Amino acid sequence: MNPSSRHAAEAALTEQVVQSFAKADNPRLRTLMQSLVRHLHAFALDVELTMEEWELAIGFLTATGHMCDDKRQEFILLSDTLGLSMLVDAINHRSVEGATETTVLGPFYVPPLNVSPADADISGGAAGTPLHVSAQVRSACGTPLADAWVDVWQSDDDGYYDVQKPGQEENLRARFVTDAEGRFSFWSIVPVPYPIPTDGPVGKMLGHVGRHPYRPAHIHFMIGKEGYDTLVTHLFIEGDQYLESDAVFGVKRQLVVHLDDADGGWTASGDRMGPHKRLKHDFGLRASSILNQ
Amino acid sequence: MNPSSRHAAEAALTEQVVQSFAKADNPRLRTLMQSLVRHLHAFALDVELTMEEWELAIGFLTATGHMCDDKRQEFILLSDTLGLSMLVDAINHRSVEGATETTVLGPFYVPPLNVSPADADISGGAAGTPLHVSAQVRSACGTPLADAWVDVWQSDDDGYYDVQKPGQEENLRARFVTDAEGRFSFWSIVPVPYPIPTDGPVGKMLGHVGRHPYRPAHIHFMIGKEGYDTLVTHLFIEGDQYLESDAVFGVKRQLVVHLDDADGGWTASGDRMGPHKRLKHDFGLRASSILNQ
Repeated sequence: MNPSSRHAAEAALTEQVVQSFAKADNPRLRTLMQSLVRHLHAFALDVELTMEEWELAIGFLTATGHMCDDKRQEFILLSDTLGLSMLVDAINHRSVEGATETTVLGPFYVPPLNVSPADADISGGAAGTPLHVSAQVRSACGTPLADAWVDVWQSDDDGYYDVQKPGQEENLRARFVTDAEGRFSFWSIVPVPYPIPTDGPVGKMLGHVGRHPYRPAHIHFMIGKEGYDTLVTHLFIEGDQYLESDAVFGVKRQLVVHLDDADGGWTASGDRMGPHKRLKHDFGLRASSILNQ
Repeated sequence: MNPSSRHAAEAALTEQVVQSFAKADNPRLRTLMQSLVRHLHAFALDVELTMEEWELAIGFLTATGHMCDDKRQEFILLSDTLGLSMLVDAINHRSVEGATETTVLGPFYVPPLNVSPADADISGGAAGTPLHVSAQVRSACGTPLADAWVDVWQSDDDGYYDVQKPGQEENLRARFVTDAEGRFSFWSIVPVPYPIPTDGPVGKMLGHVGRHPYRPAHIHFMIGKEGYDTLVTHLFIEGDQYLESDAVFGVKRQLVVHLDDADGGWTASGDRMGPHKRLKHDFGLRASSILNQ
């Protein structure tokens, strides 16, 4: 077969597969599958994928699936490290004046068990530099939002989240509710950079391509209130060495914050605090609309 | 953000991810990952993938991984039903005059345990219409190839391969070696159409898009000899109702064969056979070359 008839045969195969989805009742599903087939086939043709590479890909996907359980989501890690998660975030969350930028959820979110009081210490005695966080939640137009729920979660000084440690109780993870002025505050520790899990196929992939697995230090926030889009974001720490090379591409300039030096203060349970870092930040939620859903 | 700056931000994200693979030592791996990222991102942008659809995709891939074990390869089934397997086959096996066309390996190949003699009955007493297969293996130039190994495998009258049935011994699966004239022959049963496994995520996907799961009746052949590319192919039966809609897109016109009516003959173990169907076919192997590897 000469090259042009070869290309014609391959194009005919792609069309045959695309047409096999033409009878899908759900028009959105039809669009998704037909576009997926076109892009998947275009990739295989562009790189002239070999049988051996196809077998390696099948093995990689299988190992990635076998790594997933109720505590570990290796496919989300794959999506994150290929920039797909941030792209889907960008597609679905247009920037709005006054609204905080969004970033990836990450694989370590679980809903906190209880609502904590203002100035609760969520560190559970974990080692690290003490940090006081105080914030106001407002609408994109600047109106303070009372009774918004605020979930926060972060890793410990060793770079692990509570759910990664067998037998570890809830720690460095809490829910707050904003007061009449839309404010919430808590004590924690200054986050540190940490590597995404490297003991699975995604970690191996990063090693093979010479990419480091680190994320710059950050605290996760999820903030919700009826009538507003739930905000999923992080705050990153100014000066972090990985801000320009986040393994999951999650950094946006607006989300990088400065920590001040401070001293004194009290936790909700009456502990006197000494020298610490202070983070003050305001969050903007955008109103729900049919366009945004 | 207006639409054009939005597109610029998304394009910048894609470039950032592409660049993250620039330091890969292996140039082929770099090419593969960078092309994969471009096509994956182009897909998400084309369909404006929603967060909910992304979550469904993560769940689908996870379930597909969990379905895989040493007897079941759901990701190969996914590749097959999206036409990717046949596309990779087409990319890697250019048609050559005199050489038999290739098709998918499928998920049910395991090497046969022993070499069977000419005219062995591989049906193990399975129900079905008796079939005698006789064939010659030749080079693409027509030279008969002695001492080629020939693996054959097919499903039973209920549509199952031996490896799909718990506790089933090797059946409808055998290895032959061609004689001095390149010939091999065996007794079996006429294959019937069967559905690919529908109890996993891929089967559910086919159901959601209104595709049937059937493959037209076929016998698998894998034929090898040093100095020649190993041939992986099927023979399909003329007149089958699924020839135009194979769930895995594996049919090529050259591989559709006619069955004759016949009577009489003997198996290798001395059983007298009565009325049966007869399949005569010749296979062409192409010489190995650096270009073909």
